[in-house]
Amino acid sequence: MTTLRADRSFAEECDATDPLASFRERFARDDPSLIYLDGNSLGMLPLATAERIADVVRREWGAGLVRSWEHWIDLPRRAGDLLGRHLLGAAPGQVLVCDSTTVNLYKLARAALDAQPGRTVIVTDDDNFPTDRYVLAGVAAERGASLRLLRTDIDTGVTPDAVAGAVDGATALVSLSHVAYRSGALADMAQITGIVRDAGALMLWDLCHSAGSVPVELDACGADLAVGCTYKYLNAGPGAPAFLYVAAALQDALRQPVQGWFGQREQFLMGPEYDPVPGIGRFLTGTPDVVGTAAVEEGTRLLAEAGIGPLRDKGTRLTSYLITLADAWLAPLGCAIASPRDAARRGSHVCLRHPEAWRIGRALIRSRVIGDYRTPDRLRLGPTPITTRFTDIWDALDATRRVIEDRAYEEFPLEPARVT
Amino acid sequence: MTTLRADRSFAEECDATDPLASFRERFARDDPSLIYLDGNSLGMLPLATAERIADVVRREWGAGLVRSWEHWIDLPRRAGDLLGRHLLGAAPGQVLVCDSTTVNLYKLARAALDAQPGRTVIVTDDDNFPTDRYVLAGVAAERGASLRLLRTDIDTGVTPDAVAGAVDGATALVSLSHVAYRSGALADMAQITGIVRDAGALMLWDLCHSAGSVPVELDACGADLAVGCTYKYLNAGPGAPAFLYVAAALQDALRQPVQGWFGQREQFLMGPEYDPVPGIGRFLTGTPDVVGTAAVEEGTRLLAEAGIGPLRDKGTRLTSYLITLADAWLAPLGCAIASPRDAARRGSHVCLRHPEAWRIGRALIRSRVIGDYRTPDRLRLGPTPITTRFTDIWDALDATRRVIEDRAYEEFPLEPARVT
Repeated sequence: MTTLRADRSFAEECDATDPLASFRERFARDDPSLIYLDGNSLGMLPLATAERIADVVRREWGAGLVRSWEHWIDLPRRAGDLLGRHLLGAAPGQVLVCDSTTVNLYKLARAALDAQPGRTVIVTDDDNFPTDRYVLAGVAAERGASLRLLRTDIDTGVTPDAVAGAVDGATALVSLSHVAYRSGALADMAQITGIVRDAGALMLWDLCHSAGSVPVELDACGADLAVGCTYKYLNAGPGAPAFLYVAAALQDALRQPVQGWFGQREQFLMGPEYDPVPGIGRFLTGTPDVVGTAAVEEGTRLLAEAGIGPLRDKGTRLTSYLITLADAWLAPLGCAIASPRDAARRGSHVCLRHPEAWRIGRALIRSRVIGDYRTPDRLRLGPTPITTRFTDIWDALDATRRVIEDRAYEEFPLEPARVT
Repeated sequence: MTTLRADRSFAEECDATDPLASFRERFARDDPSLIYLDGNSLGMLPLATAERIADVVRREWGAGLVRSWEHWIDLPRRAGDLLGRHLLGAAPGQVLVCDSTTVNLYKLARAALDAQPGRTVIVTDDDNFPTDRYVLAGVAAERGASLRLLRTDIDTGVTPDAVAGAVDGATALVSLSHVAYRSGALADMAQITGIVRDAGALMLWDLCHSAGSVPVELDACGADLAVGCTYKYLNAGPGAPAFLYVAAALQDALRQPVQGWFGQREQFLMGPEYDPVPGIGRFLTGTPDVVGTAAVEEGTRLLAEAGIGPLRDKGTRLTSYLITLADAWLAPLGCAIASPRDAARRGSHVCLRHPEAWRIGRALIRSRVIGDYRTPDRLRLGPTPITTRFTDIWDALDATRRVIEDRAYEEFPLEPARVT
């Protein structure tokens, strides 16, 4: 990588030679002055997705009506295979697009625990995303198992050593986020999965913050299970359906708890007993969200066209540049980096720590920079490789510098939770 | 009601005086020659919904980006309250639009069973919709409870007497469909709910085939729980999110098993322990489907504008007319009515029984009439009060008569399941 410089012309040079630069034009950009660094919360709208949704609504639903189920019926599998092939390193027949991340996590964690009757412990980390911790705690409680929480440094994430120290013959399941939602720390999927499997436990990865931002090799790493959302880097829209992965070798040994008719063999015979199909289909539950799944397909196609290699390369350059500018400009103003400095250990977002993170975030929005706040004192900035420019990073960090220097954030009310 | 006559001019007179006639123009009708009698499987597209979805996608998501969560966050409750008020007889704060019917059924059945620790039986009927039977069987099995199946006449549905004979001090939960998916039989919600509650059990209604087609009075009937889909009479589109109802008095006593972050108190504090909000919000799981929920709001608004009273009145007239024509024309051709003849005991669809139902259905599609097939020998015809004309019924039955008389169905292959 070329040496990073703090003058704006450096950012302009990077943009001019960015092989992915043209993809930016493939997204709705109603307000060209807006700098959007929250695609890791809700990704931007691809123009092709707006068209596809309109087509699904007007032509497939409006004109085709119930006849369109002939091709909708396989949509969760088709979208899943596409995602598996281009972004998850999963051979066909192992990924479905369906339900929410929360519901999928519940289904797979329950299935995993039920498949390991002699083992009574689920392991996760105390900084895992809330829904993961809550769902796993619920699953553990209802099966008479216990939840073991790894204590994690929230800036650096889960290490293989910590996992190795936490798994044993009682461990049924380990569930971790591949990229930590707060720090962006990237876990070593291959090594951790190996440790977990060597202990005879199953490994479930949450890929919410990694799918579409970092290369994921589920098959090659020997992962058992995975879930993830599609509204972040996959740009499938607010509340679009999530995905799940179950390794082929494991599918027929697992039974998920929500015995819905979309997982039934000969679904339209509507037979008396639940008899799940062999393979990945048994992890379906109810009628799939057609519009949302179509949006997942479109979002995945766009990322596939860009290529996860180039996306990852640009992502690490963007976050490295962000850190360089933060070190130069914001560290003297009391802002610390709260994410791994090693790009190989980092996803596509960076947290800055500052006691006034909440109000700084509010002030930045007024300055046309949208980032995100995370408890307790983190300003989370998520460059999205497919849409973010290097000049966006320069401008955002420059705006942050001014907001802190000028104490512009003091005009904003305190974080609601801190007021109450 | 005026005497029904079998000449087409009668149907034309009915259409001419139909107070709901103009609503037909509010739906996409790409093919004016198509007679669509499958709105009870997938409702037609309201034009306002196409516009609303486009607006949610382009303006709220595309331009508003993550900022739109400020008003999206309450969407499941807002859409639920609207639905409750206009179509379900439920006071505010008791209905949510979220997840699929299958997932909601699982959540509520589990919550109900867990809340009745001394009771170990779930009751449903052997002709309940497959996903209901499968989910309830799974819930019963995982809690060490048993599933008791009422034996039901598939043409006339579940009676209060049958329920009274099946519930006792061991019954934790009774779960039934309000309108049977095959026969259209309408269960007596008030009487059955009373019987179930008198036995100390909880009552869970599946409203998939009744929401938007028959008046539902959940509060007045003292119902405990309900679920239902939105892609039939609510016209919210393929796989749009379902709804759930939990009576206010019961909410804080129940805990659903999928402990997701959208049910968490102070969700964005992301605290260490799952601590569900008081009230209906605790039945949320993961990030809600925004596009689909907006479509539920639009569909509900349209039905509210028409009024469930006029819709029900027209619905019973349409199905009565259908039965009159079937008696006159199709009975002599070997077709029997397989739905209640008493309009007060019938939802908005009618089944005709014929050994060649599958192939007749195929032949009708070629004749531009879309109905549906249900095992083992049922042609299901679903007039949708808001879009179906009396002349549609006349034309559809006339087409059916010709298909059977001419044995036009013999050109079509046998039902796949019967071939294999």
